[in-house]
Amino acid sequence: MISVVIVGTGNVAQNLFNALEKANDVSVKQVIGRNPQKLAFVTDQAITSSNFEKIVAADIYILAISDDAISVVAQNFKNIDGILVHTSGATSIDELSTAKRPGIFYPLQTFTKDRIITFNEIPICIESPNEDDLELLKKLGNTLSNTVVELDSDQRKTLHVAAVFVNNFTNYMYTVGAEICSEHQIDFKLLQPLIKETASKLDKITPLEAQTGPAKRGDQKTLHNHLQLIKDKHQRELYTLLSNAIKEKHGKEL
Amino acid sequence: MISVVIVGTGNVAQNLFNALEKANDVSVKQVIGRNPQKLAFVTDQAITSSNFEKIVAADIYILAISDDAISVVAQNFKNIDGILVHTSGATSIDELSTAKRPGIFYPLQTFTKDRIITFNEIPICIESPNEDDLELLKKLGNTLSNTVVELDSDQRKTLHVAAVFVNNFTNYMYTVGAEICSEHQIDFKLLQPLIKETASKLDKITPLEAQTGPAKRGDQKTLHNHLQLIKDKHQRELYTLLSNAIKEKHGKEL
Repeated sequence: MISVVIVGTGNVAQNLFNALEKANDVSVKQVIGRNPQKLAFVTDQAITSSNFEKIVAADIYILAISDDAISVVAQNFKNIDGILVHTSGATSIDELSTAKRPGIFYPLQTFTKDRIITFNEIPICIESPNEDDLELLKKLGNTLSNTVVELDSDQRKTLHVAAVFVNNFTNYMYTVGAEICSEHQIDFKLLQPLIKETASKLDKITPLEAQTGPAKRGDQKTLHNHLQLIKDKHQRELYTLLSNAIKEKHGKEL
Repeated sequence: MISVVIVGTGNVAQNLFNALEKANDVSVKQVIGRNPQKLAFVTDQAITSSNFEKIVAADIYILAISDDAISVVAQNFKNIDGILVHTSGATSIDELSTAKRPGIFYPLQTFTKDRIITFNEIPICIESPNEDDLELLKKLGNTLSNTVVELDSDQRKTLHVAAVFVNNFTNYMYTVGAEICSEHQIDFKLLQPLIKETASKLDKITPLEAQTGPAKRGDQKTLHNHLQLIKDKHQRELYTLLSNAIKEKHGKEL
């Protein structure tokens, strides 16, 4: 049985709590959050606390809090004997340097309010300077997910940059698509099967192989017609930049 | 029973052939392609032809060919009595003006070589100046898909622009993500659950609501750190442009 304390009340903390509470061989001993009202998601309110002076004993302490808060909140865990991990893709393990046993437990997924996620396919990236601690983090990861990988802080930060492109920036492409539809009274839902197929293709082929469209084909006529149709200056700029990037990548004449 | 002739040998033609051949109340009478070798995908070779002088009688003729070829190939169908449609999102119905009964049958999806798609969730956008023809196109669409919508040429072209953003440009975001991973010996497959969740979120919420990430949060420290990590000039430019766009959209100070 791995005993765990979760610190935080946001989307990651809530999703981790839900998943760990259900996991085999894991016992959530405590959930700590500064604001007691935000701890309402914890089914057993007796294990909640807003007092960092009353941290209970556990094998692993998970800081599921915003990046900026990590090094500050970590100060409360100077004297604990368990492993202290954070869940941030972008933050170095060094921000936990005051802990006896620092580590990383980074679930690579986008967590949204009121959306409960199943962890079994979510990669969990772990890190620790200590072999035994790494083993325990791996064991905890495996109670949730089929994919637990060891990455050092540089690799994890790089993976986080890649995640920004495939998730945050992709979602921005969806946003522009939705705006264009809305301006012309077209139901954005029509694009959903296309969006899903675009994502699913990657099960079989690389994104380089999956590229289609006028820019890939070097179809100047369609590119020109599209630019005529786009009225928003910013959307036009984006269309041109990305079309040129695709043309360049796929070796078409500019 | 709706009788159909398909013209073309590319991904759209092949996928349409596969789907229409299996559809109830549809009979594929002929598949025409200039290059006989590219007609190998047609199971019954007796219905293939490379001769536009020998077009058989049918209710609907589907030009599933490249945008540039539509108006030229349409010349071969001046005297036919059936409806002549093309399958292009970007091309006006006017390019079929020499036909007696022009129309549009545009399946909104990305078709990839060697990838057979099920049509039932793919929106099919139809257009015709004639009510009866519109009805017949709708009937044909319904043999394949649950979603058949009537759009005029302007709406369809606009939808195509939106499709370029959510499909072609999104796929380019995946390409950059894959490049960043590969430069740092990280398996791109780790990002696949994130990519799928980013697409699936749209079942429940709008892309504007779904936006997450450092730019959305106005997290300057992470944005700065990411730019330090990105070595490629073009990737940096893209990162800055899209982060600024997201910040602006979500009302953060630049």
